[in-house]
Formats: sequence, structure tokens, C-alpha cells
Amino acid sequence: MEAAARTNQNVGATSWFSSFQRLKDKAAKLGKKLKKIGKDDPRRILHSFKVGLALSLISIFYYVNPLFTSLGSSSTMWAVLTVVVVMEYTAGGTLSKGLNRTLATLLAGALGLAAQRLAALSSHSAGEPILLSVFVFLLAAMATFSRFVPEIKARYDYGVTIFILTFSMVAVSGYREAELIKLALKRLSTIAIGVGTCLAISIFVFPVWAGEDLHNLLPANIDKLACFLEGLEREYFGEKMGGDQILEEASFLGTYKPVLNSKPTEDLLANFARWEPGHGCFGFCHPWKLYLKVGALARQCAYSMEAISSHISTDKKSKVITDSEFRERIRTACAEMSSKTGKALAELATAIRQMRAPSTAAAQHLSNAMTASESLKALSPPKDASLPEILQPATTASLLSEVVKSAQHLSTAVEELSRVAHFKRQGQGHKDSAVKPVAGGESSPHVVVEIKK
Amino acid sequence: MEAAARTNQNVGATSWFSSFQRLKDKAAKLGKKLKKIGKDDPRRILHSFKVGLALSLISIFYYVNPLFTSLGSSSTMWAVLTVVVVMEYTAGGTLSKGLNRTLATLLAGALGLAAQRLAALSSHSAGEPILLSVFVFLLAAMATFSRFVPEIKARYDYGVTIFILTFSMVAVSGYREAELIKLALKRLSTIAIGVGTCLAISIFVFPVWAGEDLHNLLPANIDKLACFLEGLEREYFGEKMGGDQILEEASFLGTYKPVLNSKPTEDLLANFARWEPGHGCFGFCHPWKLYLKVGALARQCAYSMEAISSHISTDKKSKVITDSEFRERIRTACAEMSSKTGKALAELATAIRQMRAPSTAAAQHLSNAMTASESLKALSPPKDASLPEILQPATTASLLSEVVKSAQHLSTAVEELSRVAHFKRQGQGHKDSAVKPVAGGESSPHVVVEIKK
Repeated sequence: MEAAARTNQNVGATSWFSSFQRLKDKAAKLGKKLKKIGKDDPRRILHSFKVGLALSLISIFYYVNPLFTSLGSSSTMWAVLTVVVVMEYTAGGTLSKGLNRTLATLLAGALGLAAQRLAALSSHSAGEPILLSVFVFLLAAMATFSRFVPEIKARYDYGVTIFILTFSMVAVSGYREAELIKLALKRLSTIAIGVGTCLAISIFVFPVWAGEDLHNLLPANIDKLACFLEGLEREYFGEKMGGDQILEEASFLGTYKPVLNSKPTEDLLANFARWEPGHGCFGFCHPWKLYLKVGALARQCAYSMEAISSHISTDKKSKVITDSEFRERIRTACAEMSSKTGKALAELATAIRQMRAPSTAAAQHLSNAMTASESLKALSPPKDASLPEILQPATTASLLSEVVKSAQHLSTAVEELSRVAHFKRQGQGHKDSAVKPVAGGESSPHVVVEIKK
Repeated sequence: MEAAARTNQNVGATSWFSSFQRLKDKAAKLGKKLKKIGKDDPRRILHSFKVGLALSLISIFYYVNPLFTSLGSSSTMWAVLTVVVVMEYTAGGTLSKGLNRTLATLLAGALGLAAQRLAALSSHSAGEPILLSVFVFLLAAMATFSRFVPEIKARYDYGVTIFILTFSMVAVSGYREAELIKLALKRLSTIAIGVGTCLAISIFVFPVWAGEDLHNLLPANIDKLACFLEGLEREYFGEKMGGDQILEEASFLGTYKPVLNSKPTEDLLANFARWEPGHGCFGFCHPWKLYLKVGALARQCAYSMEAISSHISTDKKSKVITDSEFRERIRTACAEMSSKTGKALAELATAIRQMRAPSTAAAQHLSNAMTASESLKALSPPKDASLPEILQPATTASLLSEVVKSAQHLSTAVEELSRVAHFKRQGQGHKDSAVKPVAGGESSPHVVVEIKK
């Protein structure tokens, strides 16, 4: 009996210990994850402190007697609420939400007061609440429906929410509050205090600009495309095309993948960037729409790369026993196309990053790639080859030509962007790149690209 | 003078009239747009009325004396606020937000009370506000940082906002309010009333289920892919491949495009669907994750189609002067591949829509498409042809083979989904499809696909 009890106790202790161990492992894992998130972008840590700072500042209104008595308990709460809801990661996000909130509150407050006055005219005692309910019902339904319009959804969704909220509150609480206008003004002032605090901290304390993020996102994405092409040249067309190398483990195969789904991020950043005042190198009317165009063309490139990637990884087992001269010529042409296009893309990325017009090197690389693509047309397949023997390398070459074409569209769009956004021109006070544009294009440092498996 | 004045007056009147006309045009355009939005999905109009209804119901608390006095003005406002913020288009969205709000309020309220008590222990008079500020700063910073964890961002973003809000309010207002617990309980009850109203209306009044929307979105997307393939067979491989038909105007060329960017919508719907109780044909543990897998594979198909589409529209001007028998054989193989794969995809879409296992017809079509793809391997190119003469049709064929392969992966995933989700098997009380599965597969009605130009 005693032994059994002791064993039970031991088992209990062991299971406690093991579950404690598991918990510890989980905590360690979470800690690592959080550390990585902070390391990837230290501005995230700063942003967290900024939110804490804004809230601490606002809570001073509670502690300091004259401030508190001038606003009252309920209004002070609205200031806290405003800070929590309006404070966004980017300055543009905070501006967009803050302006939406302020304007919607003003408009809805005025309309709510009007509705309240109108309902108060009713002679019957039950008339006022009924009329108010009808007003609230109609306004809320109409405003909710307007949120299904894509343009409103994208830019004013938050404003519409606040509009419904404020209108309902003002219209309905007017039934109980005697000094409605005084109350409304007080509330407006607390919202202004909250929005002002958020804006000041967002814009003046280590600001994170959505526009700057967008400006950095594009070259990072284009660099990912360049990495894929350079990997392709190095690891696939490198002397033994169509051979038996293990492609599935090749790290470059996945580099372009994040670009495929980059649209929502780009749209959001461009939407926020539009609200931002001029900052750093970006004026108030910086052509953010053109960034979206460049982004869309980069995605187009990525789609073609997806086709190449799935083509070369599914067909790698098919035997290639073609005439070796034919294969060799396709290989050199493909290697040339991917290498030159990769270099051109890298140069375009660097040009955007440095806010200068793309150097002539990019155009030169692209024209070389085009020549390589054209050279394939003069090629004759070996007389005795069957179709699949030609198909595998020929399709790869054809898809690569597609990438070259997409890269040319991308180059035109970057050229347009650099013109409209008044990027530095060559020889216009930018001596480094004017002196050795080709070398700059050839050895441009790449951004480190993370590969998600 | 008089004549000039009259002319001026006329000009003024004309410009007034024309600007009025322009305003009228704009209003008419907006009206048309709104009408279209409502017509495309009448549930949007219903949803708008539901929001109006929820707000009208909540505002009763203001009008009925015993209710109002038991809650108080400030608390009643919280109920209105809860309704406006929690009410979402889908039932899953409302559930997700409602639960997030309730749980976050409970947790943050308890923590806030504890922080308040801890700070009140301080002996120095300035100690309490300083300690409270430190608590608010730390909690807000930590919670804000947790929002950068992707899993938390996707599912609990709203909960974290409410957590910060409630904690700050409770901790800070405790400095002023004597009966903090009573206040907290009252506020909790109003939030419960708001969330309860929203949930009741979302779930019981014409509910919109995110799960159902996801379940309908997938077959609609797969049908778009099928439309592309069938259009390809009809308009491109129809007797005159590589000829001079005007492809840019071909309506089928854009059908698959919406699928390219379907990921965010699918992710959101799946996220909301997870919160929904069992409804209609969907149990509580319906495998929504598999829907995401099927969606990803459909996107994979769309990427290959993008490659085909850009290949055939850029290369359509290259002269095709190949040996006509060679071209004819590629054409028939391609026509067969696109037609059969299109039919297979249409059958998969119908199967998902009808919640039954895909019929054997789908597998049969795919195997036929595969045979056509294999048949190309036996083909020999004409002896005297140069590479580009072969390249254009051969690349198209090769890309189509890629689509066939993607469709096979898709078919496997749909098969898995039908097994895990316990869809009806053939001959299992579903006589129609058991009797004539092939005919059902062949003539399945397509969803009308909108083509955005």
C-alpha cells in the first residue's frame, strides 16, 4: 500500500514536472518569437512605448485636479478611448483615423442635434422617442450601406463607424440631457485632446511613415525577384541545365513568393501615405499611385517566375538526351537572360532606394537580355529530336522571355516614377552614380531576403 | 452696357445650370452604383437594416424610465457604443468581435482593479498616480507589442485593443471613483447587453454566415478557372490557333484574374467561420482549413493561367508558318487538354457547391487531359522548322500541361475535403448524380462570372 502510494506520488510529481517543463519550453519559444519580432523591426518596440507614453500622458487629466474638474469623469474617459483607438503604427494611419474621427464626430454631432430638435417639436409625449428611433434607424442603415462602396470602405470605414456612433449618442441622449450642446462641445474637446496627443507623438516621436515603408517595400520586393533570377542563373543554368541536381532544396526557388501576395500591404500603405504631410525626401503630393503601378508590375514578374519555378521543379525528372550543342545554346541564352534581367532588376531596386533615375546600365542589361531572347529564334532544333526533348528547355526559355518582357514594363514604370517624383537625374549633383553607373549597377548590394519554407 | 450685363447674366445662369447638370449626373452615377451594390448581394441591404434595428432596440434603454435609471446615462452610452462597434456583416465576425470584447473586458477589468488596489497601498500622496501611470505604461506597451505577433493580430487584434482600453480606464478612473467595483459591474452588464443584442440579431435575423460565404466563394473561383479554359478551347484553339484573331478583346482572357488576389478574403472568411456555431449543413468543426488549402491550389492554377494568358497575347503577332500537320496535332491536344480540364474543374466546383464527393467524371476528364498531354511527347517537330516556329505552340502546350497538373492537385484536395467534411458519397441517398454522373459533369450550370475590364 505504502509503496503504491509512494509510486503514485512519484508519478504525480513526474507528470507535474513534465507539464512544467512543457510550459517552460513553450514560454521559451514565445520569448524567442517575440525577440525575433522586435529584432526584425526595432521600430515595433518604439511604437509600443509610444502607445504607453500617449496613455500615460492622457491619464494626467485624471490626476490633476483643475484639469479633471474642467472636463469631468465621463469626458476624460473619451480622451483615453480616443488614444487607444486612434494610435496606429504609422503616422499616416494615425492621421487617417484621427481626421476620420474628428470630422465624423463634427458632422454626426451637428446632424444629431438637428434630429433631436426636430423630434422635440412633436406635440405628443410618445412622439419624440418614436421619431428619434426612426431617425437613428434610417441614418444607421444608410451609413452602414455606404460602407459597401469599395472607395468608402478603403478610406473612410472608420469615419462611418464613428458617424453612426456619434449620431446615435447625440440624438438619443438628447432625450435625457438638458444641456446637450454644452455636453457635445465638451466631448468634442476631449476627442481633440486625444487626437492631438496621438498625432503629436506619431509625428514627432520617432515617426514611422507609411510612405517611407512603401518606398522601401518596393525595392525589397524587386530585389527578391532579382535574387530568384540570379539564383536561377547560378544554380540551374550553371553548366548542367536539366541535369539531376536537387532543385527542391535550392534556396532561390522560393525568393519571389512573398511578392505574389504583396497587394494588400501595398494598398494599405499607399492609402495611409496619402494622408501624410511632406517628410524627408517625400513631398505632400508624392505620386504614391505610381508606386502601386510599379508594385503591380513586380507582381506580374513574380507570376511568370511562379510558372518557371513550377515548370523546372516538375519537369526535372524528364530525361534530357537532346543534341548537346542545341541544349548548350539554349542554356547560354537562358543564363544570359536571367543574369542580365536579374542585374537590371537589382539596378532598378537600387535606383528607387536611392531616389535617383535608373542608370543606363539597367536599360543596357535589359537590351542584352532581349538580344539573348531574340537569338533563340535563329536556333534550329536537332533533326532527330522528339518534341519533349525540345520542349523542356524551350519552354523554360520561352517563360524566361516572358520575364524579360515584364521586366521591361517594370523598367518603364520605374522610369515614369522617377520622372514624376522628381528623382535625381544622372549628373545632377550625384557624381558617384554618374561616374560609374555600370559598376554601380553590377555590384549593387542586395537586401537580405528571408526564405520562408 | 445693358446687353453686356444681360450676356453676363446669361453666362452666369448657364454656368449655374451646367454645374447643376454635372451634380445631377454625379448623383445619378452614385445612385446606379449603390443600386448595383445592393443588387449584387441583397443581403447587404438586409445587413444595413439589421444595424439600424439593433441601434433602435438599444436606444429603448434611454426612453424607458426604469431601464434608464437602473443603468445610468454613461453606461447606456456604452451599450450603444458596443452595438456600433461589434456588429459585423457576418455572424462569425460579430461572434469574434463580441467574444473578444467580453473576454478582454473581463480580464482587463480584473487586472485594472488589482493594479488600482496595489497603487492605493502607496503611503505617499503622489505615489498612487505615479504607480498607476507606470502600470498603464507597461501594460499598454506590452499589449501593443503582442499585436505584432501574426497569430494574435489575425484573431485577437480587437480583443487586445479593448484590453488596453479597459485596463487604462479601470486603473486610472479608480483614482477618482469611490465605488469602482459597482461601476465595473454596471459597465460589464451594458457590454453584455450590447453584445447580446448584436449576437441575437446576427444569428437569428437573416444570418450571413462567413462559413457559407467561404463555401460559396471556392466553387465560384474554380468556375472562373473553368470558364477561362473553356473560353481558351472555344476562342483560341477553335480551328485557327496562332492565327490573327483579336485576342485582346476576348472576354475569357480575364476571367481567372480575381482568383489571383483571393487570399485575403479567404483568410478573413475562414477566420470568422471558425467562431460560428454549427448551421445548415456545416458542423461546428467543419474543416475550414481545408478550404484554405483548396483555395491556395486554385490560386496556383490561376498563376499558370496568367502565364498562358500573357504568353498567347504577347506572341500572337509572331508568324506561324510551321508544317500544318504538326500544328494541327498540337492544336487538337491543347483543345482536348483545356476542354477536359475545364469540365473537370466545373465538376469539382459543382461537387463542392452540392456538398457531395466529386463524381468519377472529374477524374475521367482529368485522365483524358493527361493522356492528351502525354500524346504530345510522341510528337516530332517538322525537320525544317526553326525554333520560334515550334516554340509558340509548344510553350502554350507545355503551360497547359502545367494547368492540368495543378488541376490534379486541386482535385486531390477537393477529394480530401469531401472525405474529411463528410460530403455525400455517390449512391448514398443522392440518386440523381449516381445515375448519370457523366452527364451531370458535362452540363453542369456555371455561375455567371463578372469580367472586370
